[in-house]
Formats: sequence, structure tokens, C-alpha cells
Amino acid sequence: MTITINETHNPELTSWVESANLPFADFPVQNLPFAIFRREDSNEAFRAGVAIGDQVLDLAALKKTEVFSGLAQSALEACNAPELNAFMAMGKEAWSELRLALSKALRSNSPFQAQLSDCLITQRDVEYSLPCQIGDYTDFYTSIYHATSVGRLFRPDNPLLPNYKWIPIGYHGRSSSINISGSDFNRPQGQLKMPDAEIPVLAPCQRLDYEMELGIYIGKGNASGQPIALDQAEEHIFGMCLFNDWSARDIQGWEYQPLGPFLSKSFASTVSPWIITTEALAPFKTPWQRDVSDPQPLAYLESTQNRNSGSYDVQLEVQLETEKMRHENQPASHLSLSSFRHSYWTAAQMVAHHTVNGCNLKPGDMFGSGTQSGPSAEEAGSLLELSHGGKQKIELDNGETRTFLEDGDSVIMRGWCQKEGATRIGFGEVSATVLPSSE
Amino acid sequence: MTITINETHNPELTSWVESANLPFADFPVQNLPFAIFRREDSNEAFRAGVAIGDQVLDLAALKKTEVFSGLAQSALEACNAPELNAFMAMGKEAWSELRLALSKALRSNSPFQAQLSDCLITQRDVEYSLPCQIGDYTDFYTSIYHATSVGRLFRPDNPLLPNYKWIPIGYHGRSSSINISGSDFNRPQGQLKMPDAEIPVLAPCQRLDYEMELGIYIGKGNASGQPIALDQAEEHIFGMCLFNDWSARDIQGWEYQPLGPFLSKSFASTVSPWIITTEALAPFKTPWQRDVSDPQPLAYLESTQNRNSGSYDVQLEVQLETEKMRHENQPASHLSLSSFRHSYWTAAQMVAHHTVNGCNLKPGDMFGSGTQSGPSAEEAGSLLELSHGGKQKIELDNGETRTFLEDGDSVIMRGWCQKEGATRIGFGEVSATVLPSSE
Repeated sequence: MTITINETHNPELTSWVESANLPFADFPVQNLPFAIFRREDSNEAFRAGVAIGDQVLDLAALKKTEVFSGLAQSALEACNAPELNAFMAMGKEAWSELRLALSKALRSNSPFQAQLSDCLITQRDVEYSLPCQIGDYTDFYTSIYHATSVGRLFRPDNPLLPNYKWIPIGYHGRSSSINISGSDFNRPQGQLKMPDAEIPVLAPCQRLDYEMELGIYIGKGNASGQPIALDQAEEHIFGMCLFNDWSARDIQGWEYQPLGPFLSKSFASTVSPWIITTEALAPFKTPWQRDVSDPQPLAYLESTQNRNSGSYDVQLEVQLETEKMRHENQPASHLSLSSFRHSYWTAAQMVAHHTVNGCNLKPGDMFGSGTQSGPSAEEAGSLLELSHGGKQKIELDNGETRTFLEDGDSVIMRGWCQKEGATRIGFGEVSATVLPSSE
Repeated sequence: MTITINETHNPELTSWVESANLPFADFPVQNLPFAIFRREDSNEAFRAGVAIGDQVLDLAALKKTEVFSGLAQSALEACNAPELNAFMAMGKEAWSELRLALSKALRSNSPFQAQLSDCLITQRDVEYSLPCQIGDYTDFYTSIYHATSVGRLFRPDNPLLPNYKWIPIGYHGRSSSINISGSDFNRPQGQLKMPDAEIPVLAPCQRLDYEMELGIYIGKGNASGQPIALDQAEEHIFGMCLFNDWSARDIQGWEYQPLGPFLSKSFASTVSPWIITTEALAPFKTPWQRDVSDPQPLAYLESTQNRNSGSYDVQLEVQLETEKMRHENQPASHLSLSSFRHSYWTAAQMVAHHTVNGCNLKPGDMFGSGTQSGPSAEEAGSLLELSHGGKQKIELDNGETRTFLEDGDSVIMRGWCQKEGATRIGFGEVSATVLPSSE
């Protein structure tokens, strides 16, 4: 298996799809992420595709060519569906086999270039759906910087609770309102209680925010009552995407005690279309960072492997495009840049913790990483943090200002991995626009 | 539609299935609940059935007889599946039509007795699966008696939070670990922090509890961004079941802040097999009770209809059967009896609140009502309450005692509706047994 991984990561590799070889391409032949797509505005069936440069390789069409065989062809057959769940359930060996076969077939020296050329569709011409049926979605809270600065706003005397450094804090989220990038949504209404009011009112959210997160998709699940050990956890992670966990801060402030956020989150969440496999991300694994003063985690959350390479250095950027910018053709304004490497808990620790009580994960379940704020102020992953709880205006590149989101605002998130000696891997983008409240 | 409802509720009606006419039958011809079943230990496909007396009417077999026509036959076709979601999605008119056709065909004077006799299977000989694919599960917290007494244990100074009387408090739960009655499960392990300990440990739960709840199934859903108005909410509720929301109190105490319960709930939840339709429950609707001192709810949670008949008087009983009782053939010990009529919020208010932010509900989604503790001590719906936080032993009928659940304990819940002038409607039962921790 190690040979396979090294082979597909070789930075010398190029593709006969020329756009994949451009220096800042998100989707070089070393990436090969999966999505569910069809031609835009068509009645075609949604099916799986793999990104290569600015093209989508249609896996349903590829299956028919029969250029693959064995496990790779079986994996292709599982991909011929309107969701990736069956392929995700096959496990790491099948994912690797298909990835290796795709890599070989898309390399510059591929013997299959003619057959695969017929299976390419320009990304510009396609639309995406959710990559899988997300049975359960769990949102974690793994940035200690986010937890501390948000905690300070909600509980000034008690920002970081005593359990934070022991437990990868998480809570169950709403699956039905997770949508694919480009799904605009109405500003939610909800109960708000103004600081000086005696009673709440029903009104459109006035403190609408984004949260810059990574989405983590479960591949193979586990049976009820059978926890996944930390060092096996990576085997159960299919891949990652960009995730915007839109949040209504005023609804949240009034509703969240004692059982946690509810309607402040369930109106919309947005994922990017492409799932970047953990295998493609392997070169960007990095040591898990903790302060020496931090407690040792309990044994089920601790291993040499996790310490040495449990984190992923995925850069995450947020931009805001206002209605004015769109109308006046101005570029979107940069808001922040951080990395998943700052996470206090690793993806593997999230899996081990989630299942330690016997909870069963299923293929296609998704974890949100929690807002990925970094240690410095400009790495904050939400407007709540950037505007200090709405008290400080954020100046945008064109002179507009924001504390929270206004109607017509589009939030655009991008992600990528890059370092010396490895090929850059991109996540593409996730974006959606806030529409006025429908009430 | 009113005529239909009255006709199927007529207490004079009897069935040619004699066991349905017994005075304490759970499933008289006025009930007609739905489940998914097959013959026990068979390889048959799971399919929908309707309970009548001690029999299951096999809807897949009934469809083939073609004794029904029109919308009732279309509804039967939707029922010919391993889950009820397609039928639930058809909406109230289809549910009513099928229910009326079933009622007529099962009445004493039915012209179809011969054909339907061939479609009956004894309940003793069948096994059940989940009645539908539960996409999202939300747990509410609608008993003010439970919220107050549990609040007192977790926050002695601040038992009932200021939002309680304004918001039907709820949180997202875990769908994957909801299982059908009879699914035994291992005692969960998790992080526990003893009151006098400096750091937590990983250990089997020591304060394992049940929660006596009603499950509420969504039938027809709503589109994102389109809230369901209070007076339309009942149209979206397909029916109700018994629900045991097993809870690990020690895991919960350490993990639940600030984002709510997580692993303390996600190891197992158990539903009863039969969904009792809201139409069958209609005679047991009752005024929604509030103290005069309680605040008027906001307009979206308030209507004359809801005030006059928003609550359901469903009796809920819990019994405990220990391993000793099973071995020595002793009857299970009664723990408590309460009613859903004590709920501070109605099922319709839960629907209206859940969607007010634009959240989309889907057919088959389930709400837990929250632990249905009543106003008096013996109506408490959990051991946490009955044992005053574990401080007071509960004496069982055979002389054993409990504060929390021990390995081998089975918790059995039953539910029913009864009143003068109406036929008793039963829910059947939900039960499951705690197995030792697998670690």
C-alpha cells in the first residue's frame, strides 16, 4: 500500500489533460477528488466524477469503456450511482485501487488517453449535487482559538470550559439542511432576545455569520458497540471538503442553553462539491501540536502515530463578495486565512472519540471540524470573532464595512495544501449567497 | 374529512378479527397502526403491516388481492417497501383513505373477510425493523417537570432557564443509533469525571438511565425556507410511537457544556415498532394546559386550535425487569406512569418552532418529545429523577433496589389512550436490555 501512495504522490507526474499541469491547478493528477455531477440544466442522471484540471472524468462513462479490471472496475461500478455511499463503504483498499488506476490512466504516458478523452466534460458545463447521502452530521469544536474567543463573548468569566482539553467537544447537527455549494438560502428568522428587552421577539436574524470549517466524510463505518481505535481511525475517513456552517448568532445566544445550538444552525450548511481523499492529502500530514502545559489526553486519544502525523495542513481562506462588488465588478474581499493544522484535536481523534461509547458511524456520515480559527486575530474563522462580537466594523477592500452578513452577501471559501517537494492539492471552493428573509 | 374521522372512531365498531374486540386490546379496528415486519428468522423482505388484534395484516399481500382501488390502492403500493417513507410522504388525504378502506375491510360486516384472512400473520411470529428511514432525529425537552428537576441536579441555583417558557427547547440527535424494540445494547463507556477527581477517566457508564418519551414521526415535509404554520402542523405529523432515549448521566455531566449532550445519548435509542396515526389518536386530543402565570407564547406558537385541542392524552408507563425477575419468573416492577398531556409544548408547536427558521423536515424524520415527567414524584420519567440524582434507592416489587440501571436490566415502556365514550387505543410496548460493557 505504501508503494501505491508514493507512486500517486510523485511530484514529477503530469497528465495528458494539460489544465491539470498548471502551477496553481486545484486538481492535478496527484489529487483526483470525487463528486456527484451531471451536465448543467440537463435531465441526465447524477453520477460520480473525478476532477482532473478543468475537466470532470465521467465515471459512469469510464465504466462502460472497460479499460479497468478487478477491484478498480468493481469500485467504478459502485460509483455508478447518484451518491458515493456504496463506494465509500468499500473501504481503503478499493479507494486506493481505483485511485491508482485513475492516476495511471490520466498520466502523460497513459495507454488509455483515447478512451478517457471521450469521458471528459468541462467543469464549467456541469452542476453538482451532494456527493453522498449524509445520514448523520456531527459538528466538532476543535479550534481552541475559536472556542476561547467565542466562549469569551458568551461567557466572559468562563471562556474555555474545563472539559475542552480532555474531550473533542462535538454535537449532533442537522443533515437535511446541508446543501451543495451555490445553494443560496433565505436569511433565517427566529426568536431573538435583545439585551435590554424583557421578552423575545420573532424576527429575521440580525447577526448572521459564516463558520469556516473542514468537512470530514466517513467511508467505512463501524458496528454498534464496537469503538474504532485511534490508530485505525484513518482507515474509516474517506476524505475532506470545505464546509460553511452558517450561524445565526442572535438566535444561538437565546436558545443554546442547556442543550446546545439548534435553529441557529439548522437553516443551512454548505459543502464544496469535491471530496479530497485522505490519500491525496497524505503528503500534508503533520505533527499534532500541543503546548507542553496541556494535559496528556486519555489513552484512547493518544498514540505515537497521531502525535507524529495526525494533523493535516490544509489552508483555509474566506472571502466576502457583496452585492455592490458583484454589480461593480470588484474582486471579492479577503477576510481570513488559517489552517486545519491548528486544530486542537485531529480527525482521527474525532473518530475515536465519537465511537468510544459504541456509537455506529455509517458510510457518508459527515463531521464538521468546527470553525478553524488560528492563533492570530487575522486567522479568525467567523465574523463573530473578526468583529469582536459585532462591536468593531470590518473594512472591506472597496470601502464597504460589515459586522455581520447582509442580504446579497456571498461567502466564498477556498482550501489548498502546498509545501516544498509536493504537488499543490486544491479543494476548489464553496460559496453561497444570503437572500432576504422570506417572511 | 370530518365524516371519515368520525366513522373510523365509532366505538360501536367491531372487527371480524376477534382478538381486536377484547376490552384491553391495544389494536382494535379504531387503531390500525403501521409497522415494518417480516416472519421471524425468515429471509422474507421486510414490508409494511397494520396491526389488528393479535395479528398483522400484510399490506404487500393485501395489495395483490386488489380489493382496494383509487387512492387507497396507490397508498398500498407505496407501503410495499422496506420502509414507510414513501407512504408517509403522500400526506394526510392518502393516509386517511387507506385507513378508511382498512377499517371497512376489517369491520365485522366486511365483504372482504375471505381475502383479508389470507393476509394475516400472528404478531407472535413476526419480527420488526425500523418503520422508516429516520433521516434526522430531533429531541425536544417539553416536560417542564423534567426540565426543572433535572435542571436542579445539574444547576442547583438555576434549574429552569429563562428561555424555557418561550422556546420549545430541542437539539439534534443521532439517527444511526436508533433501533427497534428488542435491540439489546452494550453499556457505553465514556469519559467520566468523578466529583472529587482532578482528571477524567475512560470507564463504563455508572449512571445509566432511560428516558420515557413519545416519538413523533413527520409525514409530509416542507421545503427549505418555508416554515410550517402552527395550524398546519398537524397535517405534517404522520403518527407517534414509544421512545426510550437511553442516557448516560455521568458522561452527560462532563461533556454537555457548551454544546449539549453528545455521546451520553448516541450509543442507543429504542423505538416501539408500531406507529399510531394522529388520526387514530384524534379522540384523545385535549386542551393545552398552561398556568395563568405563564407567559403567552409568541404569535407563531399560539392559536385557538392549539389551545383547545393541541395536546394528546397518551398514558406512558415504565416497568423494570431485572435479570433476577426473569430467572425467577417474577413480574416486572412498575416504576412510573405519566401522560403526554402534561407536556409544556404540543407536537404542533414543536413542528412550527422547528421550521420557523426555514429548516426543512423530511418524511420519516422523528422528534423525541423529551422525557415525559408529570407534576408528581411518581410520574417522573427517568431514574435520575426517581432516585433524586442517585441519592435515594428505589425499591422494586421483589425487594431488589436500584439507583441507576444494572447489566441485565430490561426497561419496558407501554402507552395507551383511554376515556369514556371512546375505544381504548394502545401503543404496544418498547423494551430492550442492557448488556455488559464490551470493553
